[in-house]
Amino acid sequence: MTIRALKGHGTGNDFIILPPDQRALSTAEVALLCDRHFGIGADGLIGIVRTEDAPETFVHEQAAVAPWFMDYRNADGSVAEMCGNGVRVFVHALLREGLAEAGEFVVATRGGARRVRIAAPGGDVSVEMGVGTPELPSRITIAEGTSFPASGMYFPNPHAVVFLDDLEDAGELAYIPEWHPAERYPNGVNVEFVRVAGPHHIQMRVHERGVGETLSCGTGICAAVTVARDAAGESAAGRWRVDIEGGTVTVDLDEAGQAVLTGPAAIVAELQIDETWLGSNA
Amino acid sequence: MTIRALKGHGTGNDFIILPPDQRALSTAEVALLCDRHFGIGADGLIGIVRTEDAPETFVHEQAAVAPWFMDYRNADGSVAEMCGNGVRVFVHALLREGLAEAGEFVVATRGGARRVRIAAPGGDVSVEMGVGTPELPSRITIAEGTSFPASGMYFPNPHAVVFLDDLEDAGELAYIPEWHPAERYPNGVNVEFVRVAGPHHIQMRVHERGVGETLSCGTGICAAVTVARDAAGESAAGRWRVDIEGGTVTVDLDEAGQAVLTGPAAIVAELQIDETWLGSNA
Repeated sequence: MTIRALKGHGTGNDFIILPPDQRALSTAEVALLCDRHFGIGADGLIGIVRTEDAPETFVHEQAAVAPWFMDYRNADGSVAEMCGNGVRVFVHALLREGLAEAGEFVVATRGGARRVRIAAPGGDVSVEMGVGTPELPSRITIAEGTSFPASGMYFPNPHAVVFLDDLEDAGELAYIPEWHPAERYPNGVNVEFVRVAGPHHIQMRVHERGVGETLSCGTGICAAVTVARDAAGESAAGRWRVDIEGGTVTVDLDEAGQAVLTGPAAIVAELQIDETWLGSNA
Repeated sequence: MTIRALKGHGTGNDFIILPPDQRALSTAEVALLCDRHFGIGADGLIGIVRTEDAPETFVHEQAAVAPWFMDYRNADGSVAEMCGNGVRVFVHALLREGLAEAGEFVVATRGGARRVRIAAPGGDVSVEMGVGTPELPSRITIAEGTSFPASGMYFPNPHAVVFLDDLEDAGELAYIPEWHPAERYPNGVNVEFVRVAGPHHIQMRVHERGVGETLSCGTGICAAVTVARDAAGESAAGRWRVDIEGGTVTVDLDEAGQAVLTGPAAIVAELQIDETWLGSNA
């Protein structure tokens, strides 16, 4: 008795993907599968679920435009709205499983229906990420003691974007950066450290709230590009290159600030997970 | 085109196992597969190799007693002699693949032939680990500044064993502990922090050289038990219980100090690794 799954990643953000028509997994089972020593190991688990069967009824109306729902769960088993890197892996899995064809289509998520585009199986995936909303600035202080001014941007989760001449100036990022005023972000904030490498080209590191420094953060990339465009005094549409720890992606901003994130993904392996092991350890 | 593999762990020390009769993997391919974000993720990769086909000719003579060679490689792709937790996963894989039967048999390793015992498929595995050699004491200083006396024990790699009333006193172990005199361990040392929980019962944390704090270390467990027995003024044979971060194991010491480590292992999933992905990314 096994559960069939896939493992893949988008710029180093890695996921276990569960094809449809298998039994639902408990929170403890998701947490065990995502555990990097006792399980398979992943940043999260994404179920491919028929949209009309999504556990949350508010998702069901997306079935009219999106047959497949991205049931995203964090590594601790808790549900989450969306993940800009995870959705690329989700699209690769849909094509590999024969559930969608190359081209443009819509996927359902807890954060609303998202239009995606993929030219060919295994190719780069473009995802509509929405529009950022500028917020008040703050000051970010790293563990090493240095303090930096930060621009605020909701995308729609909170981001604080710090410009640096050298990304090493962000220090080790071994601890959560502090923000001032403290009441600005009662639920924490993602912090992007950005170096402008050239016209329409930035490099960045990101500290994700609740996680630590990560290889890539889809909404953080879009937030950073939006702030960088504003800082450059631009408002016209354009394509930006973003180098992150996990690879390189591009962001297209239109006149209205709508961001489309394009980047690679890979399916690494197919998994047959031992049901007996899972049932007796989760 | 896929490469078939297994993923499993022994007390949280996790491995990718490669069944026999598949192509050899390069150092870069092993490192990519063991990468926890861009690959599958594991502490190491163990190939099941016919002993007469081992890459090192000095292993071939073990073929007379051990048909299967445990070709152990670290997560960076470098070769290693043996791993006390990995050999349990190796034995589980041999039975699952139909390459050995429950009972007592010998496996070949770069550290010499090892006798193992497993009562039934999926059960606990006992492994002969050898005899420890006492070495001179040293002082271990943790990053928080506290300094402790340590007993030295080669097993056959170097271990420094520190006794504590409370394992929390070892601090965060976020950095490599320092040892004095510095010239005692030119190639580094594994440090075991041990609390005596009762007669023949210890709890421990371990900082492995080159890795950091780990969930379990097979030779460290045997070194700690040997030092604990000597500290208790005992010399007779006996069974010890050892609680580590990754679970509980037992060590049987005979009159001569020969240690047999017994503990659990689990095969978590079978993997079909994408050859095209591996070839184009490693």
